[in-house]
Amino acid sequence: MNNSRRAFLGRAGVAAAAMAMVPSIVDAAFPAPKKKKPFALSEQEVVLFQGDSITDAGREKSKELPNNGPSFGGGYAFIAASAILDHFSAFDPVVYNRGISGNKVYQLADRWQKDCLDLKPGLVSILIGINDYWHMRNGRYDGTVEKYEADYRQLILTTREALPHVRLVICQPFALPGTTAVDESWVQPLKAYQEAARRLSREFKTIWIPFQELFDEAIRHAPASHWAADGVHPSMAGSHLMAAAWLKNVFGI
Amino acid sequence: MNNSRRAFLGRAGVAAAAMAMVPSIVDAAFPAPKKKKPFALSEQEVVLFQGDSITDAGREKSKELPNNGPSFGGGYAFIAASAILDHFSAFDPVVYNRGISGNKVYQLADRWQKDCLDLKPGLVSILIGINDYWHMRNGRYDGTVEKYEADYRQLILTTREALPHVRLVICQPFALPGTTAVDESWVQPLKAYQEAARRLSREFKTIWIPFQELFDEAIRHAPASHWAADGVHPSMAGSHLMAAAWLKNVFGI
Repeated sequence: MNNSRRAFLGRAGVAAAAMAMVPSIVDAAFPAPKKKKPFALSEQEVVLFQGDSITDAGREKSKELPNNGPSFGGGYAFIAASAILDHFSAFDPVVYNRGISGNKVYQLADRWQKDCLDLKPGLVSILIGINDYWHMRNGRYDGTVEKYEADYRQLILTTREALPHVRLVICQPFALPGTTAVDESWVQPLKAYQEAARRLSREFKTIWIPFQELFDEAIRHAPASHWAADGVHPSMAGSHLMAAAWLKNVFGI
Repeated sequence: MNNSRRAFLGRAGVAAAAMAMVPSIVDAAFPAPKKKKPFALSEQEVVLFQGDSITDAGREKSKELPNNGPSFGGGYAFIAASAILDHFSAFDPVVYNRGISGNKVYQLADRWQKDCLDLKPGLVSILIGINDYWHMRNGRYDGTVEKYEADYRQLILTTREALPHVRLVICQPFALPGTTAVDESWVQPLKAYQEAARRLSREFKTIWIPFQELFDEAIRHAPASHWAADGVHPSMAGSHLMAAAWLKNVFGI
């Protein structure tokens, strides 16, 4: 083990030799709510994961089946959906992943009829925004944070109009500096996008998943590269951490 | 919801309308041990998942990288390994999946030097046996349960000789009747293979993962097809359930 990892062990309050229990990052990032969230999934309810490459995670797109491993790819959505299908098995949930790599929020809007409304979801989880910032930053896109917020608001209004009872989950876009693609210069400008997403979550009273705060806690346990080599696309560890946080915040499991 | 699922809801003690908590299948299948298992993973310890198609789960085989999503495929090994890399992040674990579809125990032996011993694992988890039975049953293989047990014993002896401190996990092969490939006529003959694996686990004092008992409990919550459409290859739900049982029995997490 190198010195840097030793420092993490020390910081996490773990003596390797002592074989102690490792503290849970999710518990540290999100202290237990005062009231336990009740279980809430109706019979054969449709759950939809939407977003960009982080949600896509290499999913097979020729069939786009629900409850199907290859159609889910290898990211947080696969792990979270697998947990839903296990934990709520008696309710026969129908879970889709329709994330597409490279998407910005306006591209979700372009395919929202087919990839959201037609599926009649009871629960829609959206993780979008990192490309709205990243592609603007590298000159591939001329959108602004104001456009991101306006497009995102319209997407939610459209969804609420078509599906009045839909429950929404808005996930915070995130980035981990000190990695192959992300440095400290991302932090401040990305914050504007994160705050826009947070405002929309409050405005529409959605569930909010603060992934940036989660990873801010995670990097006290292991280097940023352990969670996402390029700072944007989570590793296996990062995907599991995201799924655990999602499940805790949405279902209390 | 059809009547059959309603029956499962009733049997699981869950009133859908009441939105109650769903009981945990893993907790029901494995009552809490008297003493909490201590955490046990050393710094940069190599963990290896070995087996057949259930472990393989479509993994990408050109690079066979550790801690890499595509190299892990989309089964229980991906979920369990992701959880290990998350929970024990400060210890920088190195986790491999080297399951290969169709393998019987003698085929593990053929590639054990490259796909186990050379990796110098501290922990090896093996799930093998369903093809030793299935391929014999359908006439593609002339092995017997005696050969399964003898080959498996030799594999463990070889492993213990080369890696004296290795911790072994033996997973029970399993099948779910009432599915597209498995009917009740599998139960008794498969039991002989399951008992052989159990004997070896006792003989070598390995950790034992009773997947058959786990799925026997799971089918009280949802139909067998929910957990494995063909009765052999787990669904997303079945993969998550296996990973949860594995993690609880191996690490107490």
